[in-house]
Amino acid sequence: MPTFVDILEYIGTFAFAISGIRLACRKDFDVFGAYVVGLATAIGGGTIRDLLLDTTPFWMLKSSYLIWSGIALIFVYLFRRHLIRLNNTFFIFDTIGLALFTVVGIEKTLNMGVYPFWTAIIMGTITGAAGGVIRDIFLNEIPLIFRKEIYALACVIGGITYYISKQFFDNLVIVQLASSASIFITRVIAVKYEIGLPHIQREDN
Amino acid sequence: MPTFVDILEYIGTFAFAISGIRLACRKDFDVFGAYVVGLATAIGGGTIRDLLLDTTPFWMLKSSYLIWSGIALIFVYLFRRHLIRLNNTFFIFDTIGLALFTVVGIEKTLNMGVYPFWTAIIMGTITGAAGGVIRDIFLNEIPLIFRKEIYALACVIGGITYYISKQFFDNLVIVQLASSASIFITRVIAVKYEIGLPHIQREDN
Amino acid sequence: MPTFVDILEYIGTFAFAISGIRLACRKDFDVFGAYVVGLATAIGGGTIRDLLLDTTPFWMLKSSYLIWSGIALIFVYLFRRHLIRLNNTFFIFDTIGLALFTVVGIEKTLNMGVYPFWTAIIMGTITGAAGGVIRDIFLNEIPLIFRKEIYALACVIGGITYYISKQFFDNLVIVQLASSASIFITRVIAVKYEIGLPHIQREDN
Repeated sequence: MPTFVDILEYIGTFAFAISGIRLACRKDFDVFGAYVVGLATAIGGGTIRDLLLDTTPFWMLKSSYLIWSGIALIFVYLFRRHLIRLNNTFFIFDTIGLALFTVVGIEKTLNMGVYPFWTAIIMGTITGAAGGVIRDIFLNEIPLIFRKEIYALACVIGGITYYISKQFFDNLVIVQLASSASIFITRVIAVKYEIGLPHIQREDN
Repeated sequence: MPTFVDILEYIGTFAFAISGIRLACRKDFDVFGAYVVGLATAIGGGTIRDLLLDTTPFWMLKSSYLIWSGIALIFVYLFRRHLIRLNNTFFIFDTIGLALFTVVGIEKTLNMGVYPFWTAIIMGTITGAAGGVIRDIFLNEIPLIFRKEIYALACVIGGITYYISKQFFDNLVIVQLASSASIFITRVIAVKYEIGLPHIQREDN
Repeated sequence: MPTFVDILEYIGTFAFAISGIRLACRKDFDVFGAYVVGLATAIGGGTIRDLLLDTTPFWMLKSSYLIWSGIALIFVYLFRRHLIRLNNTFFIFDTIGLALFTVVGIEKTLNMGVYPFWTAIIMGTITGAAGGVIRDIFLNEIPLIFRKEIYALACVIGGITYYISKQFFDNLVIVQLASSASIFITRVIAVKYEIGLPHIQREDN
């Protein structure tokens, strides 16, 4: 029986894979290429985290992530005429994935017991955001998260929220909820109100 | 004395490096840059595999791979006016490399004794195909294998062939030959008859 | 108290981060994206080295590198109208960083006691030059060091100088100085006299 966290993780994997597969199809990748891009979007961040933490990449012993990426491929094929209408749903799923992956990354790092908290925040951010960077490199585009909207910064805010709420609450579930909620809300507000980060003027440097 | 498998591995390294060096020269890389791209094409897949398996990257203790990449560089320089006529030979060498690297990747993973077979297939595919992805990222192009022809999928077919033939044959050499042959034949047929994978129509997603 | 080598390392981190941040701003990255590119330029080479050596990435237990990348971001913001006039200073800082990072990479590899010297030279070169490659991949450009000027080759020359001077001098500081000086001088001469490496003519291959 999958746990509640498992189910959230599958939703996140599915949503991340969808985003990679759709962009790959727009660039005329074949189905295998689209699958690889979807899979890399879904598992890329956690893989980099696990390499940095020197632990076995999480997907190498559990096939769910490959399977959910495959389901995402079939889904994109079957509903290719209707995906645009589902954009809001995908956005919600993607944001759930971002929030959950970040918290998973933070906790996996903390559980190793040797890293300072700021390293855990970076690992959480990598878990949540690096898959999208790999996706964009495969698509030969400048990573979207470096130019638009608040994405990786939401993970950092989630990490700081994790740290602060841990000082106040003993119950880990409350800490996890506070952290994920802060990521989710930051991202939703940023997208809804089109809030982006400032850019340093280019003309002068 | 190099073994028969060593010789095949040098042929594969040479062919992979040639492909990287030629593409780098076309994009006006200098000789050092061309060498790095050639080397990365040849050893990139195996390096990612070894990082994922948490084992010492195979080339760090044995200089043959660097030397054969250097020979490839000299070869491209000396025969730069005649390389196009050798395209068929390079294709055969490249496909030998693909087949052998995949089998080596599968067996190295299985020998670690902790991974399921599907992980070994992925590791074999990464060993064979990821070097070309790194090459194309260095060249700032969309990885060719995601868009054209059957390449990485041949590695997956080789992995499945390895698995099936292992159920029927005790002799490892037969299993290795069956697996490499399936990769070689898949790729040759795909290129000869210009068989590619389907693409999901872009207009709708 | 930071040691003399620490200070050189911070100068190198600062200069590498500046180069990444400036290029990111020219491509209209937001401040977070610019910071990530600067950080990746500064710590990317050493991170790849540490993953290959299977040791904890150097920045995961010491926050100085993140902080100096942050100072670089503030510096670029504050002095954005005057940075071009500082180009020569940045070049000197960058070259100090290149020299020092290479020597650090060589010694970290040698200290592990299992790798041949040529592997240490490669690790030194990766430490010095790979950050710039990651930067250019993030910027979606062909890595500059593959096409222009002598950059990574200066690291290789530094590695060979390290090896040779070690045969003659027992004093490690002399060896380190000889190696860094050879990198620094090679790079300065190459840029001042616009010396580049030859390219293999493209028309024929």
